[in-house]
Amino acid sequence: MESSVHLHSQLLELIPDSKRVTRGPSIVAAHSQDYSHHPPHQPDVVVFAESAEEVAKVLHFANHHRIAVTPCGVRTSLEGHAIPIHRGISLDVTPMNQVLEVRPQDFLVRVQPGVTRTQLNRELRKYGLHFPLDPGADASLGGMAATNASGTTAVRHGVMRDQVLDLEVVLVDGSIIHTGGMSAKSSAGYHMTGLFIGSEGTLGVITELTLRVYPIPESTVAARAVFSDLAAASESSYGIMQSGIPIGRIELVDEHTIFAVNQAKGTTYMEKPTLFLEFEGSRAAVQEDVRIVEEICREAGSDPGTPGTPGTPGTPGTPGNAAASLSNVDNTGGGLIDFVFETETEKRNLLWEVRHDAALAVIQTAPQKRMKVTDVCVPLSDLPEAIRMARETIDAYDTYGAILGHVGDGNYHVIFMVDPDNAEEMRIADEMNDKIVQYALSRGGTCTGEHGVGIGKMRYLAQEHPDTLPWMKRLKQVFDPNGILNPGKLFVDEQTE
Amino acid sequence: MESSVHLHSQLLELIPDSKRVTRGPSIVAAHSQDYSHHPPHQPDVVVFAESAEEVAKVLHFANHHRIAVTPCGVRTSLEGHAIPIHRGISLDVTPMNQVLEVRPQDFLVRVQPGVTRTQLNRELRKYGLHFPLDPGADASLGGMAATNASGTTAVRHGVMRDQVLDLEVVLVDGSIIHTGGMSAKSSAGYHMTGLFIGSEGTLGVITELTLRVYPIPESTVAARAVFSDLAAASESSYGIMQSGIPIGRIELVDEHTIFAVNQAKGTTYMEKPTLFLEFEGSRAAVQEDVRIVEEICREAGSDPGTPGTPGTPGTPGTPGNAAASLSNVDNTGGGLIDFVFETETEKRNLLWEVRHDAALAVIQTAPQKRMKVTDVCVPLSDLPEAIRMARETIDAYDTYGAILGHVGDGNYHVIFMVDPDNAEEMRIADEMNDKIVQYALSRGGTCTGEHGVGIGKMRYLAQEHPDTLPWMKRLKQVFDPNGILNPGKLFVDEQTE
Repeated sequence: MESSVHLHSQLLELIPDSKRVTRGPSIVAAHSQDYSHHPPHQPDVVVFAESAEEVAKVLHFANHHRIAVTPCGVRTSLEGHAIPIHRGISLDVTPMNQVLEVRPQDFLVRVQPGVTRTQLNRELRKYGLHFPLDPGADASLGGMAATNASGTTAVRHGVMRDQVLDLEVVLVDGSIIHTGGMSAKSSAGYHMTGLFIGSEGTLGVITELTLRVYPIPESTVAARAVFSDLAAASESSYGIMQSGIPIGRIELVDEHTIFAVNQAKGTTYMEKPTLFLEFEGSRAAVQEDVRIVEEICREAGSDPGTPGTPGTPGTPGTPGNAAASLSNVDNTGGGLIDFVFETETEKRNLLWEVRHDAALAVIQTAPQKRMKVTDVCVPLSDLPEAIRMARETIDAYDTYGAILGHVGDGNYHVIFMVDPDNAEEMRIADEMNDKIVQYALSRGGTCTGEHGVGIGKMRYLAQEHPDTLPWMKRLKQVFDPNGILNPGKLFVDEQTE
Repeated sequence: MESSVHLHSQLLELIPDSKRVTRGPSIVAAHSQDYSHHPPHQPDVVVFAESAEEVAKVLHFANHHRIAVTPCGVRTSLEGHAIPIHRGISLDVTPMNQVLEVRPQDFLVRVQPGVTRTQLNRELRKYGLHFPLDPGADASLGGMAATNASGTTAVRHGVMRDQVLDLEVVLVDGSIIHTGGMSAKSSAGYHMTGLFIGSEGTLGVITELTLRVYPIPESTVAARAVFSDLAAASESSYGIMQSGIPIGRIELVDEHTIFAVNQAKGTTYMEKPTLFLEFEGSRAAVQEDVRIVEEICREAGSDPGTPGTPGTPGTPGTPGNAAASLSNVDNTGGGLIDFVFETETEKRNLLWEVRHDAALAVIQTAPQKRMKVTDVCVPLSDLPEAIRMARETIDAYDTYGAILGHVGDGNYHVIFMVDPDNAEEMRIADEMNDKIVQYALSRGGTCTGEHGVGIGKMRYLAQEHPDTLPWMKRLKQVFDPNGILNPGKLFVDEQTE
């Protein structure tokens, strides 16, 4: 407490604004946690930075005095990145929330790190452009870069590392550097931009991003394909990927998760494995893509005696009309049960309701608890088996978990609701989590496809990257020799422990 | 010479095969240079490595004895990467040329670094897959990763960094590490894979790559659009990018370069700014994309009094028929002169002949000379002005240079033929090059979009990345403290100079 008071007065000398350098209980409490289940830790002081220069002042000071700094944005992290477990300073960059420059003809934009993705998209819409990455939460772009976030559109547009052309980063010595440039590609030296993306605030603090943006497609169509079993859904999703169609999103929701949504919302969606799809492009191209995808889904699980013979293709409705539900249900031998698509925005959203509401529905099953989310990513062909294994694991513990799969890139989440104070519940969740991660690693996959390592996956990072972990630690030494930046995340830094 | 003999015998103790550890004059001479204009330097010894373990032996030995090692593949570098300017060992990995594993259902492949891209594509064709990156030369994949190469398909598929999921790398201490994994995406720690890609053999030696591969599209259509002037061609290319059509390739060749091709080959192509395009996807989607692109091209440069009013869209021929040359030439006020497209492979190749043969045609203008190629990349909207400036510069020196533009990503090349022994000619080429690079840097662009820094762009790297160059040097210190790996490339390493 004494030291908090002293630190507060020291920081006020650097930034003489008591609204932005604060020990206020509600602000300190808010900055003690993020969206994750990890236990809260209060910072000594919260600093709201308004510029790179202020960030530089704080880092230079903190580095000199060996004080932990935990950078944060809107704190939607699911792995405790924003929790100041070594107290010190919570460095909040949300006041840096300006879209600095839109360059429509260059398909790029310069933003401050506190800008959220929906805020950016509101601004971009004026130019007929959008930033397609969608991690679900309305995350800040600085945070998305820090964790190399992605989401449902990764299958089409890649991950955060693919979007960032340049970062302004403040280093612990207070220097402010630019890592890249304004050109769409470059082979000029080591990939410094890529190094800071995904570094989880442990190498420097991001104070500006230059991002790729994309034209809003002429046409967007959402579709939902319901299957009799997981095998047919998986076969279809592979067929769709194999077709080379530039699919916008392809998401799998299993029957247990749809059951949860029905319970939570009183809806009556068919409780079967369901693919949620999005198509984008020119009107005619999208119409054709939908037709092909429906044909692929219809062939999945059809009589194996006639491989290659397309099933009778349904006559898809013209996109833009009311939902064209193809009701010629065929349950013989498994396969597609229903295929529906929609063009208009509101109806598209309704069509995707189950996918959008799945996490929320799971939260509603236990509103007093907190989320624990697995984030493994496996080679594409291993995904059906990985999901089946995850479901068996959940069932074996006689508990509940929702499964959401980014089928296009092998990344899927199991969402458990846990009470961090209930040791037995946490033990069970940890055991299930461990089984899911071990399977993924055994297949050459990763413990984290998009959420980052944070607090919760440090031992899995060590297991996944035994070869490079020592080198990661050496890089950390280069950029943060005193270990003040987000200590206790990503890996245990021997210097500070 | 003495030291060469001694080194040779030492290396023969490590790898007792005199065919693969050699001072043979023709082999040493071949390894003294690459495709670039940079002066040759002979290595003391050439080692042909057959495994990561052999690479490890050589590096461990060379590191201990402070002997320079220049890794190389098929030496198609245009910036001297493979030239052993500090003598020592030329470490040739071309014997490591096996496609180790094709995993069609995971859309990935494991290859050794000496596999060339056409070799890989021959193997992938059996699975209906392809590796789309096309830097022109039949480069080895290890070399492509080392320089973060890309080429004409970058607009659709990105650069080498976007394709590599995992690298096996041998470090100077002889350790063999894996940097990534088999999943399509990961947020597990620092981006070590990205750090080695584009490091030009200065941090480690790549001995295996895991790459993304893609389904061969159902349909591929090539098109050629001839414009009355550069402005109309530029406006069209921006319109095409803005349309959001997933264009496969979009290349600009200026009228002077077409003149050179006509001179070299006796052809009679219209000497006008020309866009070469490639479309890929489903048959119907591609047909629609071609129709839209033709409409965009037709609108470019049309009467500015009626903006937004589409010109009379031509009736495109059905792809797959003979070339549908739309001969309703409209020269009033500038704009599209001709639009032709082709579906069949041979006819597609013929349609793209000028683009494919441009570099060769320029070489034929001076077969006794060597190529010097600029490789700047600018923000997309600056490309027309950058190309105009480059043309003016070439004309001002009353010399000859071909201009080829990757219009989709702002990267363009000027190819000069130079006699490295002619000081005046080299001075002029250097001056022109400098003007072109300075313009790009002034626009926030890069000195190298895809060829890498090598020998020729070290001072431009220093100018482009003053903020990060000191950190790049620190990273070099971490991985190669004795500076044995490809010394004299990328930046001057104070340790070894």
